[in-house]
Amino acid sequence: MHVGVDVGGTKVLAVEIAGEGDGLEVVSSAQVPMPGRNASDAEVERAVADAALEVAAGRTLTGVGVSSAGLVDREGEWVRFCAHLPWRDAPVRSRLAELLGVPVVLDNDANCAAYAELAAGSLQDATFALMITIGTGIGGAIVLDGRVVRGANGMAGEFGHVQVVPDGLACECGLHGCWEQYCSGRALERVMRVALGSHLDGPQVAALARDGDRIAREAFATVGTWLGVGIAGLVSAYDPEVVVVGGGVSAVGDLLLDPARHGLARALQGAEHRTIPGIVPARFGPEAGAVGAALQAVAAG
Amino acid sequence: MHVGVDVGGTKVLAVEIAGEGDGLEVVSSAQVPMPGRNASDAEVERAVADAALEVAAGRTLTGVGVSSAGLVDREGEWVRFCAHLPWRDAPVRSRLAELLGVPVVLDNDANCAAYAELAAGSLQDATFALMITIGTGIGGAIVLDGRVVRGANGMAGEFGHVQVVPDGLACECGLHGCWEQYCSGRALERVMRVALGSHLDGPQVAALARDGDRIAREAFATVGTWLGVGIAGLVSAYDPEVVVVGGGVSAVGDLLLDPARHGLARALQGAEHRTIPGIVPARFGPEAGAVGAALQAVAAG
Repeated sequence: MHVGVDVGGTKVLAVEIAGEGDGLEVVSSAQVPMPGRNASDAEVERAVADAALEVAAGRTLTGVGVSSAGLVDREGEWVRFCAHLPWRDAPVRSRLAELLGVPVVLDNDANCAAYAELAAGSLQDATFALMITIGTGIGGAIVLDGRVVRGANGMAGEFGHVQVVPDGLACECGLHGCWEQYCSGRALERVMRVALGSHLDGPQVAALARDGDRIAREAFATVGTWLGVGIAGLVSAYDPEVVVVGGGVSAVGDLLLDPARHGLARALQGAEHRTIPGIVPARFGPEAGAVGAALQAVAAG
Repeated sequence: MHVGVDVGGTKVLAVEIAGEGDGLEVVSSAQVPMPGRNASDAEVERAVADAALEVAAGRTLTGVGVSSAGLVDREGEWVRFCAHLPWRDAPVRSRLAELLGVPVVLDNDANCAAYAELAAGSLQDATFALMITIGTGIGGAIVLDGRVVRGANGMAGEFGHVQVVPDGLACECGLHGCWEQYCSGRALERVMRVALGSHLDGPQVAALARDGDRIAREAFATVGTWLGVGIAGLVSAYDPEVVVVGGGVSAVGDLLLDPARHGLARALQGAEHRTIPGIVPARFGPEAGAVGAALQAVAAG
C-alpha cells in the first residue's frame, strides 16, 4: 500500500487514500506531534516513519509520499530550509527511503496540495491558479496550464516569506515582516493571546469561532483580511482565475475566506476594471498536502 | 515600415529597429511628452500617432506596435486601467488602428520589454525569469519556458501595485503602500525633494549621481534597496533563474542594481541555502518596451 505523509510545524499527518476523481477519499489517517524545531533531524524522520507505519497498521508499505513545508529542491531529494522544521540542506528523501525500506517521493507541501486539488479537487478545471495553504505558516503553489510551476530550483510558491510589513514582526525564518507572521496559525494564536492574555491553539480558536465567540471570530477576520491583502498582491503578479485555500487554518471556511474576499477586493489595483478571482476552499482542506503526497507515491509506482 | 511606440507616464517613445538577434538595434527614435493624466483619451492617442509618424519621417507605415503601461486585456484590444494614463476600459488598439490607418498590435509595456529581451537581449537563454521595468511606475513580466506568461486575463506581472507598506504612501492607482511608491522614477524624485527641498526629474538625478553627487547616489541606493526587497518577495514566489531590470530609472546601471542585489540577499528567505538569482540590466534599457512593440508589429506582418 501507498501512504502520504504531510510534515508540518506542529504535527505529522499520514493518510491512506482510495478511489479517484470525485470518488477520491481519505480512508484512514494517523497523526503524531512534531518533535519541535529544536529536535534532531533523526527525530523528525522517526516521526514521519511512525505516522506512515501507524496508517499501514501492519500491512506492507510499497511506497511513501512525503509532503514537507519549506524549500524542497527540484529533484525532490533535499529539504534545503524550513522556518518551522529542523532540516537544513538535509537529504530527506534518501534518509526516509532507508528508514522505511521502500521508495519515497518528496515534494513541497503546497505543491502536494495543488497536486491533489488538480487531480480530484478544486483545481480540476483550472488553467491559471494559485494554491495557498495556511497552517503553522503559509505554503503556496502556482498552477499554469493545469500543472504546478516549480521554478528554476523547485522552490516557487514560497509566498509566506514575502515581506508585507517593513521591519515587521520577527519570523522564524530569520527575516522580519513576512506575510505568514500576519496570516497563519501562529498569527491567529498571537491575536488571541493579545486579546485574552492566555494561549489557545488554532483548533481551540476555531472551535470558539464556530460557537459564535466574538473575539475568536474577530481573530479570524484579522487573519483573513491579511490573507486577502496578500492574495491581492499575488493576483496583481499572476492574474489567476481562482485562488484555492487549504491548510489547517482554512478548516473554518467562510469565517476566514469572507474577510479574505473583502480584503482582496479592497487591495487590488483597478479592481473595478477587471475580473476578481474567486477564493475557494480546498476540497481536501487540511489533508490536501498528505493526499497529494499519497497520489505522487502512487504515480511513482 | 514598422514602428514600436511605448506609452509611459511622462513620455511617448517611438522607435524604428533593424537587424535581428545580437545585431538588433534601434536605428531611429522620437519622443513626445505625455499630455498628462488629466488629458483626454484622444490627446494621448494623438501623441502616440505623432511619435510614430515622426519616426516614419514621411515613409509609409505598414504596422505599429504599441506598448502601454497598465492592465491590457489578453486579446490586446483594451487598456483596462493604468494609474499613470487616462485610459479606462478604452478600446485602444482599434482607435489607434483607425487613427493611423494601419494594423496596430497592443500589449503591456513590460510584456513588450520581455519580448525584446527574449528575442535579442538579456533573456535569450532564460527559462524561468522575471522582467521588471522601472519608469514612472513599475511594470513586470513573468517568463516561463522562454515565453511571457499572460495570466487568466492577460494582466500577469503587475508587480508595481503589490502592497509593500500597510497604510503606506498614496498611489495614483487609488491604493496605499504600493511597491512603485517606493521604487520608481516618482519615488526617486520624492526622495530628492525631501533631501533638497526642490524638484529634480529622474534624468537630472541620474546625471548628478553619475557625477558622484552623494545625495543623488543615496537616492538611487534607497530606491535600489526597495527594488531588492521587492525582488526578494518575487524570488520567494516565483524562483526565477534571473531578474532583468529595464525602464528609464535603470539607465544608471549598478548605481541602482548594486543596492538591489544587496537588498535581495538580505531579504530572501533561506538565502544561504539556495541559489540567489542575478539582477542584470536589460540590453535595450529604457527602450526595451518600444523595441518589443516594434518586434510584435513585425511579427504580426
